[in-house]
Amino acid sequence: MTAVELIERKRDGGVLKADEIGWLIAAYTQGEVTDYQMAAMLMAIFIRGLSGDELDAWTEAMLHSGDVLDLSRLSSVKVDKHSTGGVGDKVSIPLAPMVAACGVAVPMMSGRGLGHTGGTLDKLETIPGFTSGLDPTTFVSVLEKHGLVLAGQSETLVPADRKLYALRDATGTVPSIPLIASSIMSKKLAEDLDGLVLDVKVGRGAFMKQREDARRLAETMVEIGHARGVEVVAVLTSMDQPLGREVGNANELRESIDVLAGGGPDDLVELVYHLGSLMLMLGGAARDAREARNLLQKAVQSGRALERFVRVVEAQGGDPDAVTDPSRLPRPERTVEFPAPRSGYVTSCDAEAVGIAAMRLGAGRRRKEDSIDPTVGITVLAKEGDRVEEGEPLAILGYRDESGLDQARSVLQRAWSISSLPASRQPLIIEEVRA
Amino acid sequence: MTAVELIERKRDGGVLKADEIGWLIAAYTQGEVTDYQMAAMLMAIFIRGLSGDELDAWTEAMLHSGDVLDLSRLSSVKVDKHSTGGVGDKVSIPLAPMVAACGVAVPMMSGRGLGHTGGTLDKLETIPGFTSGLDPTTFVSVLEKHGLVLAGQSETLVPADRKLYALRDATGTVPSIPLIASSIMSKKLAEDLDGLVLDVKVGRGAFMKQREDARRLAETMVEIGHARGVEVVAVLTSMDQPLGREVGNANELRESIDVLAGGGPDDLVELVYHLGSLMLMLGGAARDAREARNLLQKAVQSGRALERFVRVVEAQGGDPDAVTDPSRLPRPERTVEFPAPRSGYVTSCDAEAVGIAAMRLGAGRRRKEDSIDPTVGITVLAKEGDRVEEGEPLAILGYRDESGLDQARSVLQRAWSISSLPASRQPLIIEEVRA
Repeated sequence: MTAVELIERKRDGGVLKADEIGWLIAAYTQGEVTDYQMAAMLMAIFIRGLSGDELDAWTEAMLHSGDVLDLSRLSSVKVDKHSTGGVGDKVSIPLAPMVAACGVAVPMMSGRGLGHTGGTLDKLETIPGFTSGLDPTTFVSVLEKHGLVLAGQSETLVPADRKLYALRDATGTVPSIPLIASSIMSKKLAEDLDGLVLDVKVGRGAFMKQREDARRLAETMVEIGHARGVEVVAVLTSMDQPLGREVGNANELRESIDVLAGGGPDDLVELVYHLGSLMLMLGGAARDAREARNLLQKAVQSGRALERFVRVVEAQGGDPDAVTDPSRLPRPERTVEFPAPRSGYVTSCDAEAVGIAAMRLGAGRRRKEDSIDPTVGITVLAKEGDRVEEGEPLAILGYRDESGLDQARSVLQRAWSISSLPASRQPLIIEEVRA
Repeated sequence: MTAVELIERKRDGGVLKADEIGWLIAAYTQGEVTDYQMAAMLMAIFIRGLSGDELDAWTEAMLHSGDVLDLSRLSSVKVDKHSTGGVGDKVSIPLAPMVAACGVAVPMMSGRGLGHTGGTLDKLETIPGFTSGLDPTTFVSVLEKHGLVLAGQSETLVPADRKLYALRDATGTVPSIPLIASSIMSKKLAEDLDGLVLDVKVGRGAFMKQREDARRLAETMVEIGHARGVEVVAVLTSMDQPLGREVGNANELRESIDVLAGGGPDDLVELVYHLGSLMLMLGGAARDAREARNLLQKAVQSGRALERFVRVVEAQGGDPDAVTDPSRLPRPERTVEFPAPRSGYVTSCDAEAVGIAAMRLGAGRRRKEDSIDPTVGITVLAKEGDRVEEGEPLAILGYRDESGLDQARSVLQRAWSISSLPASRQPLIIEEVRA
């Protein structure tokens, strides 16, 4: 078996066998198959696609390119949530402690932000001392003790994905549904889960701009999970406008803590409870959505959810006082209003533009190597359907330097559409995909 | 402009602009665009194709990735021949001196063998002392003095092609008509030619197995030349069976010298005269094929063609006595007959199998880094249409060691098809393609 033979077969629209895919991924991970050979294969896959059997084999091979967690000694059911990424999407931070407080263990592994989308790890790391890089022993012991762990992707889990993702990023082969699906699912399956809820974002600020594409991705991921006996539910949710009001890092963490404390903006709260209910049902902690929602509400109202978050932050080296007193979290050095150019009704607030503006302020990374500024960000005051008056703020920009501010302002010029006619708010939760 | 943007466009079936292609090839040659990015682009081109304009721009960019010969100080017309490669294809060696002896200059740049096909340079280098690696000054001065030069591809000409070819070889992107056509034509256009004859091989031992593919390749190359004002004629010729009797290196050189001395096997002689006539007509040295053939015959019969070869070999450091007395050329240490398993008529003699067998004996390279053995090879005694008797030799194998011999014999088992019914010989020259 040679890489060239397999590349040629896929190039001509043929089918790769499971053992061939297994060999290819293993040889690539070990550096025996080169980056340029894999790049040619990825482009062939991008254009020719992968069959269901090929995709299962590809995901399986990725999964076994490194260690796989063994959480069998945990008595509780383990459920995680994954989002395909959006602007202002801080859902994981309040969601995971709420679900854990209801008795379903959440072994969460998150990523960092790139481009216009933020990352859970960057937000969590605005807590002084907090570390997301846990060795497997610590990972399991935090999870065992608190029913929750908030870690970064382990270096030893699915190493093939890190190599493949970097290569796809440099070779124009990122937006391929089988490649995205296998990347996400191999990492999640390596967490030894019983259930998984997928938040597949769709819209202007999402990776998937079209509902059809998002649905195909959701279906593909659900099928991969099903084939491996893991129950997966995917929810398509709108990412036309930012989620919640805060876009940045420390400010998004503050907003997350608000939700855990029983507050927070409606759309964010709605999504956290919706996804949380699905997780509790998957985990067998609730029979239906109503029961699940009651459990989540009680966990918040009793303070148990916030308490759970505080304890896990502490277990991972973070300053618990920064959570109980969020005024201790970093704040922007300077702020300025971004005024409405005219009066009217907001018909749209472009999530992608807001995400890019936040990146220009320093809250995000243009490239993986870039560092981020935890203090800066955008507070979105006017969203779809809101009435605004000329000169009043559409947003408040927290910034460090004028050059970033100028760039952000220029991007924001095209972010809001304002009409003289009243506009309605589009639904946040679009549809659900199950096996 | 970034590589990823261009890859994405081609991936989605879009069109690249001339300046974009120029940038891409230059940046790749300089190492700014990586191998893995170019690999993804090559696969996208393989599957999506290149338009005529894109192909012209691609060839132009390759051509200008390095030096281009300036032969304007030569008063004579310059015509070259290129073959897409076959088994026993030593045509260039007798052809070039014959054409040069008729007053048309031949600035020939040849390549080395790879896989089952041989290379002109390897055959020429069996002459003791002969060197094909000429600097540009020597190249031009040999050409000026003798109207002929037999060089390897200069390192400074079309460096993009060397990088691209190695990459295509490792990434399953070799058999793409636009990529093959631009590779060949950029190198030939860099020779500053007035005319070019292309021998496009088709059949079992050729790169192009199907006539349709060979015709498309021929048409594509003719169009590229036409767009740049170089007159190109392509001839599709059969490569189902080896050309001539000898397959190897020293033995092919001996057979080439036979042709220059007025002998040689019919099929080889037919092709040499056919291509030579086209070259003379392109070069304006003959009005029609009959006149051209007469000129070529006179050049051979008078000894001028052989003399020209001897002088050029000498000018390039080779031992002229090895040409005038070919018994001085290397011979195999040992020979053995390969007997016919039954009596009958040869319906086919698979060029590819014979080429692979010769490679196994040591006459060819499996990989570019391999070295070759000039002494070994195969003398094919029975070809299409020939009557053979059981136990009589179909071929004679010249070998060095038993292991190579065993491998060659095993490959040759399937080389000949023998029928009890008489078989006719298929035509060698199939069709001509002009602008």
